[in-house]
Amino acid sequence: MSTDIRVKFGDRVRRLRKSKGITQLEFAELLGVGRSYLSQVERGKRDPGLRLVKSIADGFKIPLADLLGKL
Amino acid sequence: MSTDIRVKFGDRVRRLRKSKGITQLEFAELLGVGRSYLSQVERGKRDPGLRLVKSIADGFKIPLADLLGKL
Repeated sequence: MSTDIRVKFGDRVRRLRKSKGITQLEFAELLGVGRSYLSQVERGKRDPGLRLVKSIADGFKIPLADLLGKL
Repeated sequence: MSTDIRVKFGDRVRRLRKSKGITQLEFAELLGVGRSYLSQVERGKRDPGLRLVKSIADGFKIPLADLLGKL
């Protein structure tokens, strides 16, 4: 079975966030969500809605398709 | 203000579905959701979760990034 899309997505978000030197708290505040919610998304424990996924792409200043490429 | 991502996404899903000659009921059954829920997604009235978005891409047999390209 392929890894759950939520886990792959969360891994990518965490990696991108760290590569940009942004803390979880900073990024959560930028997105307007709680730090704990963002942590759950990064651990693949949540199924984020399309609006939040789009906000994450905007937060990283990358196209949505890049954020989700090859997931 | 740019059009809500949900509306853009829903328009794209509807257009792709029709271009493939699949009815809303057929596609809803393939996705394992109700026809009325799919109709709401296509009208931008719902914020679909990442798992459903991925199932939609799989249902169309296209990469996730293609489904969401330039949205």
